[in-house]
Amino acid sequence: MQERQKEVYGTKRKGKNGVSRKAFQDFYPDELSWCYGCGRLNEHGLRIKSYWDGEESVATYPPESYHTAIPGYVYGGLIASLIDCHGTGTAAAAVYRVEGREMGSQPLLRFVTASLHVDYLHPVRLGVLLEVRGNVKEIRGRKVVVSARVIVEGEICARGEVVAVRMPEDMKPEGMV
Amino acid sequence: MQERQKEVYGTKRKGKNGVSRKAFQDFYPDELSWCYGCGRLNEHGLRIKSYWDGEESVATYPPESYHTAIPGYVYGGLIASLIDCHGTGTAAAAVYRVEGREMGSQPLLRFVTASLHVDYLHPVRLGVLLEVRGNVKEIRGRKVVVSARVIVEGEICARGEVVAVRMPEDMKPEGMV
Repeated sequence: MQERQKEVYGTKRKGKNGVSRKAFQDFYPDELSWCYGCGRLNEHGLRIKSYWDGEESVATYPPESYHTAIPGYVYGGLIASLIDCHGTGTAAAAVYRVEGREMGSQPLLRFVTASLHVDYLHPVRLGVLLEVRGNVKEIRGRKVVVSARVIVEGEICARGEVVAVRMPEDMKPEGMV
Repeated sequence: MQERQKEVYGTKRKGKNGVSRKAFQDFYPDELSWCYGCGRLNEHGLRIKSYWDGEESVATYPPESYHTAIPGYVYGGLIASLIDCHGTGTAAAAVYRVEGREMGSQPLLRFVTASLHVDYLHPVRLGVLLEVRGNVKEIRGRKVVVSARVIVEGEICARGEVVAVRMPEDMKPEGMV
């Protein structure tokens, strides 16, 4: 997917010095990297990758030809999935940042989705790169609220909001510290 | 997918007389049957199928092993996709029903999603069948609001709402009447 994104859309993400950066999701430990939306180890999945761009977080995604709704248009469930995983990734990154800690440091921060909302403003044509931008609206206790907008060729096509909460202890995979 | 569902979960849906019934989505014309969520012609997709069960609509779906979030749990984006496509399918079926028309009759009814909301109440373990139930809350003009709940082994694990609108004319695939 990453190679395809680079080839087809020319957007493999690099930092200001031209060196490839690690995404939020690249800091998740292996045991928590199987998510269909953003797990780097899930070969069937979307492998969404999110980064900081100043105060905003950003992820780009090139839909596959079969991610269709009405023919020619991008499937809305894909857009919801992008907002979802970008939101939980942004939540983790934001709390690390607020706490002044390196991403991936212990105690580990991993968020799950409590609620997801998407307003579809315009149909999105297949064949273009989707950009998802997130803003942290609120951090309170175990909860982080992230608003998101999906942008295609400069136009906002969808707006969304994710309420993310710290992963409950009893969801931790067995054997994980 | 349908055969797998039958084999693994024993739930291929039949009517009261034991004869397999057509799903809402089976009435969509071929040109509009490529949706990743519910298009019967999209071999990469989920092929969700929705039916009436009295005043409610119902769809069941057996997640694949790779539809994971945190390992062992179902991906929330999949649940959002099920609610989405079940909602638009229910919207079409509901308007046909209100108008006293056969499903699939002209003028054709096909809905797209204007907004989607999901509240995730409990994490859902992989390996069980998801049931999505829809209720029509409102039909007004070109808009239908469908509430949904996702049930696993008798427990409501998610609640959602879809605001569906009639597909705009300019989204119709070329050549379609």
